Amino acid sequence: MPERLGPPLEQPLFNRLVIVGLGLIGSSLARAARHLHLARTVVAADASPAVRARVAELGIVDEVAPSVAEAVRGADYVILCVPVGACGAVAAEMSGALVPGAIVSDVGSVKGSVVAQVQPHLTSGVHFVPAHPVAGTEHSGPDAGFATLFHGRWCILTPPEGTDPDPVAQVRAFWEALGSNVEIMTPQHHDLVLAITSHVPHLIAYNIVGTAADLEEVTQSEVIKFSAGGFRDFTRIAASDPTMWRDVFLNNKDAVLEMLGRFNEDLSALQRAIRWNDGEALFNLFSRTRTIRRGIIDVGQETPEPDFGRRKAD
Amino acid sequence: MPERLGPPLEQPLFNRLVIVGLGLIGSSLARAARHLHLARTVVAADASPAVRARVAELGIVDEVAPSVAEAVRGADYVILCVPVGACGAVAAEMSGALVPGAIVSDVGSVKGSVVAQVQPHLTSGVHFVPAHPVAGTEHSGPDAGFATLFHGRWCILTPPEGTDPDPVAQVRAFWEALGSNVEIMTPQHHDLVLAITSHVPHLIAYNIVGTAADLEEVTQSEVIKFSAGGFRDFTRIAASDPTMWRDVFLNNKDAVLEMLGRFNEDLSALQRAIRWNDGEALFNLFSRTRTIRRGIIDVGQETPEPDFGRRKAD
Ligand SMILES: NC(=O)c1ccc[n+]([C@@H]2O[C@H](COP(=O)([O-])OP(=O)(O)OC[C@H]3O[C@@H](n4cnc5c(N)ncnc54)[C@H](OP(=O)(O)O)[C@@H]3O)[C@@H](O)[C@H]2O)c1
Ligand SMILES: NC(=O)c1ccc[n+]([C@@H]2O[C@H](COP(=O)([O-])OP(=O)(O)OC[C@H]3O[C@@H](n4cnc5c(N)ncnc54)[C@H](OP(=O)(O)O)[C@@H]3O)[C@@H](O)[C@H]2O)c1
Repeated sequence: MPERLGPPLEQPLFNRLVIVGLGLIGSSLARAARHLHLARTVVAADASPAVRARVAELGIVDEVAPSVAEAVRGADYVILCVPVGACGAVAAEMSGALVPGAIVSDVGSVKGSVVAQVQPHLTSGVHFVPAHPVAGTEHSGPDAGFATLFHGRWCILTPPEGTDPDPVAQVRAFWEALGSNVEIMTPQHHDLVLAITSHVPHLIAYNIVGTAADLEEVTQSEVIKFSAGGFRDFTRIAASDPTMWRDVFLNNKDAVLEMLGRFNEDLSALQRAIRWNDGEALFNLFSRTRTIRRGIIDVGQETPEPDFGRRKAD
Repeated sequence: MPERLGPPLEQPLFNRLVIVGLGLIGSSLARAARHLHLARTVVAADASPAVRARVAELGIVDEVAPSVAEAVRGADYVILCVPVGACGAVAAEMSGALVPGAIVSDVGSVKGSVVAQVQPHLTSGVHFVPAHPVAGTEHSGPDAGFATLFHGRWCILTPPEGTDPDPVAQVRAFWEALGSNVEIMTPQHHDLVLAITSHVPHLIAYNIVGTAADLEEVTQSEVIKFSAGGFRDFTRIAASDPTMWRDVFLNNKDAVLEMLGRFNEDLSALQRAIRWNDGEALFNLFSRTRTIRRGIIDVGQETPEPDFGRRKAD
């Protein structure tokens, strides 16, 4: 599978790459960075002793550090791969140990809040280039990662105003080496875009699965048995990591509530159309939504196979 | 692929099986019935001349009839595979041509309304056994069908009170021969179960795709590019056939509005939790929803592979 990533670089982009948090994203980065030789040394730091032990066992990094502060000593590139709500604490832990010229980045699903949490802890000469790879699965932990996760996906960089262009170019080169397309936007715009393309979809998926679980007229076993009519797709999304998603909603409150408000308005209109037998309004919306899917398939962000290419009748 | 279905029957279950409407479901039934030799003759009827021509070209039935009335002459088993709103009209067309002892069935996603539409047209001695296979894809038309669509899936039968047990047993045997598990319930209960496991999920998927298409702050091209964060899964569901789904909502109004009301209540609570930074409430819901997915995977209605087993980084 990692063949698709291409051959290792002859000259690594970085000397000492530290990944803090070896979950789905962090462990995927470690695997890809090792495979492609993007850094001379890949170092892991994680708050969880169990994760550290497992990462050592998997052999996906060169070094497992006992603490964040130890890990980042001498690092030229540090990537925070912890839940969004933990970024400030990790930045505080490492701040004294970072040398001028080092680049700090992250992979958080929210950007405005991460910038606000991390920047105050960074000493002068340390560069901060926030990043968010728009790629993932419903699984988490170091065993869930794989080197091609970012291949063919977008990574959004949101350098705060005044960031040096050089570190931005280096972070861009890193993600491009992983096979990602890179786009640059402000943290605020990122948070709005992701609210509608990721955060609100997750919220309503969690919500409907919760609603279904709480019914009295329909049993849980009926919901499970007859889920192939559409419901089961929502359960995939609603199986994502609870800590990560709690942090996303707490840290992107304004944009999520704004998009949710629009979703609710539109849903009220649909509800009204059903109540008043307005078949034309329903038909029009149901026809219009197909073009967006076609667009997603055309730009290669989705497989055109029916049922996502799930094996037929699994 | 059809090997999974097993060998053809030595004795077919029916003599003349008529399928009215050769879309995704009808053409899948035709393919499977032919492959398994479930009837001596498989006959197709469809309102659309283009579909009739395509079905003849595909060679998936023994006979393409010029009209519904011609098709059902001498039939012992007729399955309506047309949109739910068209069932009454089709029943009216065929009513005079059906012989006593014939079994009429359907595959509609709503059952109460289909019973109400079809029953008045059936002459005495004709049996009606409504059915709903809980299986499908986002594609439609005769080219989209495949013989294993129903394999390992549930088919719900909703015989109205007073239906003879014999025809019910025959319809059950038919679906079991296709590889389905059969469950029997009332039309009313069916409509409630499917409202939460299929109809409301489709409605909110259509709705969020519509909301995303209408934003001014986020462009359509951004929505498409960054859809891999969750949104694209919703677009699959929202790419389903507009006519079929319009009919579902118009014909299962009460149950859909009831379930939608609960969905909305729960969503308001979530919205409130976000507004008031109630991380615990969020975390609790997000943890609870995972068990339902585990259940779905355990009973074989879903693949455990990440991302539905989509090829990695397609
Ligand atoms: N999953 C996705 O689909 C996805 C996609 C794009 C971006 N992201 C972002 O990527 C980040 C990580 O997500 P993930 O899915 O990889 O999460 P994950 O699999 O849950 O892994 C997170 C890891 O970070 C560790 N950690 C937590 N707090 C820490 C701290 N203070 N110091 C050091 N380590 C700490 C966790 O240890 P414990 O096990 O002890 O908690 C865990 O090993 C999040 O910010 C998320 O928003 C996720
Ligand atoms: N798709 C699913 O996932 C799924 C799953 C379970 C059950 N169902 C149910 O299965 C039924 C068919 O769905 P489908 O997805 O197979 O639809 P489809 O692919 O759109 O096919 C329906 C076919 O019926 C024809 N038709 C429409 N009105 C007719 C009439 N009055 N007389 C004769 N033929 C007529 C259509 O012709 P035109 O092309 O001229 O319209 C079309 O060829 C619906 O009741 C639906 O609720 C669907």
